[in-house]
Amino acid sequence: MTSKLWSYVTPGIPDDLFDNLPGIPLSPREIRLQLLSQLRLKSDSVLWDIGAGTGTIPVEAGLLCSQGKIVAVERDEEVANLIRRNCERFEVQNVEVIEGSAPECLHDLKAAPDRVCIEGGRAISEIMQAAWSYLPASGRVVATAANLESLYTISQSFAQLRAVNIEVVQSSVNRLEMRGFSQAFAAVDPIFILSGEKLD
Amino acid sequence: MTSKLWSYVTPGIPDDLFDNLPGIPLSPREIRLQLLSQLRLKSDSVLWDIGAGTGTIPVEAGLLCSQGKIVAVERDEEVANLIRRNCERFEVQNVEVIEGSAPECLHDLKAAPDRVCIEGGRAISEIMQAAWSYLPASGRVVATAANLESLYTISQSFAQLRAVNIEVVQSSVNRLEMRGFSQAFAAVDPIFILSGEKLD
Amino acid sequence: MTSKLWSYVTPGIPDDLFDNLPGIPLSPREIRLQLLSQLRLKSDSVLWDIGAGTGTIPVEAGLLCSQGKIVAVERDEEVANLIRRNCERFEVQNVEVIEGSAPECLHDLKAAPDRVCIEGGRAISEIMQAAWSYLPASGRVVATAANLESLYTISQSFAQLRAVNIEVVQSSVNRLEMRGFSQAFAAVDPIFILSGEKLD
Amino acid sequence: MTSKLWSYVTPGIPDDLFDNLPGIPLSPREIRLQLLSQLRLKSDSVLWDIGAGTGTIPVEAGLLCSQGKIVAVERDEEVANLIRRNCERFEVQNVEVIEGSAPECLHDLKAAPDRVCIEGGRAISEIMQAAWSYLPASGRVVATAANLESLYTISQSFAQLRAVNIEVVQSSVNRLEMRGFSQAFAAVDPIFILSGEKLD
Repeated sequence: MTSKLWSYVTPGIPDDLFDNLPGIPLSPREIRLQLLSQLRLKSDSVLWDIGAGTGTIPVEAGLLCSQGKIVAVERDEEVANLIRRNCERFEVQNVEVIEGSAPECLHDLKAAPDRVCIEGGRAISEIMQAAWSYLPASGRVVATAANLESLYTISQSFAQLRAVNIEVVQSSVNRLEMRGFSQAFAAVDPIFILSGEKLD
Repeated sequence: MTSKLWSYVTPGIPDDLFDNLPGIPLSPREIRLQLLSQLRLKSDSVLWDIGAGTGTIPVEAGLLCSQGKIVAVERDEEVANLIRRNCERFEVQNVEVIEGSAPECLHDLKAAPDRVCIEGGRAISEIMQAAWSYLPASGRVVATAANLESLYTISQSFAQLRAVNIEVVQSSVNRLEMRGFSQAFAAVDPIFILSGEKLD
Repeated sequence: MTSKLWSYVTPGIPDDLFDNLPGIPLSPREIRLQLLSQLRLKSDSVLWDIGAGTGTIPVEAGLLCSQGKIVAVERDEEVANLIRRNCERFEVQNVEVIEGSAPECLHDLKAAPDRVCIEGGRAISEIMQAAWSYLPASGRVVATAANLESLYTISQSFAQLRAVNIEVVQSSVNRLEMRGFSQAFAAVDPIFILSGEKLD
Repeated sequence: MTSKLWSYVTPGIPDDLFDNLPGIPLSPREIRLQLLSQLRLKSDSVLWDIGAGTGTIPVEAGLLCSQGKIVAVERDEEVANLIRRNCERFEVQNVEVIEGSAPECLHDLKAAPDRVCIEGGRAISEIMQAAWSYLPASGRVVATAANLESLYTISQSFAQLRAVNIEVVQSSVNRLEMRGFSQAFAAVDPIFILSGEKLD
């Protein structure tokens, strides 16, 4: 799909090209790259993005999956509108934003996913279990953790769901940035990215 | 472009899917993602990949740029054959492997590039200068550095060439891996990725 | 205490000054610094070091705690002898090496600890529980984790023991090293260092 | 030396125990540990700390070098007073704070150093050259860099001064911190620590 604002086939849109709201999480470019890569998207993938925040994943995935569909689930109305604004900004038309609370709202979704991205949410283990039941064989779930509880919950959930090809990657990136009049290496806060595949 | 071995629209082919030779550098998956993203490839990009090593960038870029062309420059015949084998492995047909030594061999290349990737080489600053002269306005150069000399040489070269939108990112990733009977976080050696754009 | 081999008041003995055995873990210098700092040793501390490996912590702590005592607990006879050799090497005389299996052997130790360092071991949660019972108020436990299970077990144990001032730090360090004829930044594998204090 | 606020023989005073001023750099605990370790202080060392900022190195070094002397050089009067306040806070009495601009003011210092710590400053290469001339054989210089220019300047200066045992370490640490109501791993900005020794 083509966007005037991002006309490239490679993902990794700079953070500041997105519209944003104070306090609403935005997956930094470098983390997003790892996340998208672990999703292993197909051109016709149906992706559920749960806890979509600013909407960077829906936008990038929407651009990559030209025949696919992205369903972004977001509890908060204002945040849901932010995602919609970012989709418009990048002329992305295959993203549907659902205002609702996972896992409850998941059974209302019409298109079954082959990919699920979990970027947050209070009930991660319930969300993973619910999402898993909709996945076909070879379907993939990718989830991010910023702290020990999430890290352990996601890791345990993958084990209980008997996911295969489980991978845990911690991405930590330093960027050379301007600080006042001089440059300094600034660290992007590290994120754990966990991924697993359904066997059958 | 489609490959049976990698049928996804997202880059990030696992390292062990590539054919490799002992001692020949292979850009690890997580680093490669950052590199490809900084290249900002278009579907019809012409990419020169100088010091291509195992050929992971030509393969991934070849798959992403379906109407484009990748020219991989590699001095060593055996390594050049390794790149060819990896392209065959992934059914990539838009990669041409040139056996030659940069910067001298660059003026023999027929297709002018809009993207240049420099993954190594002894004469980095000469390579950058030569490659720059073939770039159109808005063309991009991305180069990697594993040590202080390269880091400084590349940084200085970008300044001398009056590149714009210069970015320096250091990617350091940890992977949870099996070590004997238990898991441990293993660090991927950090790489600096520098990128710059030609103004006009 | 003075050592001809390390006559400094600052910890951080280079790794290659220690005698070592293939396969026996050696806490790298940079990780060791964080570990020792979190122990907050006093000149007369009694430190139990459980799963002492090569003995780098007993040697450094022995040098720092001139009126203190270090008890190194190690299951394997050969490894216990390695620790003894390293203590001799650095002329450290306040380290006692106990061959035994924690937590069982802990009740045989004569000197009660005010500091406990847990560098490994299969039964981490039992070891933490047992060690905790010997600690006085304000006593400290520091434990390292290289993977998710240990990370979670230690974190949970601290919570169950109602430890205060719990800290979790992940140390990841890059060193510029020679690789063949050129230098490259090499990553030291990251380690999580968890610490907690007994309230009363 | 003993301090009521920090009665331990191990360095690594928590950042928030120091008095601080907005905008004045404070070496974070984890970075400070690496820095102090590379200094290889002796109990009677004379340390020049140039560009001392908040004064964390003078305080820690003052506590470690009970028979030694620390000279903290700081251009700004207000910052010099901050260092003095922190020394008082930790009851450190072997630190002299000199208000002056390096390298000019260095020839006024009475005690010749065996250790020099350079934490900043505009004219790093001049400072290194000047400081080097006062160092005895086996004297050590440790300098920190937060960006490419400093990194390169320091590295080049060590080469020109024919320093031996040059080491370059990049410390990057993640701390589990509270963010609102939940925990997250936060990255401490990475710092390069370069050290070298005078041969004779």
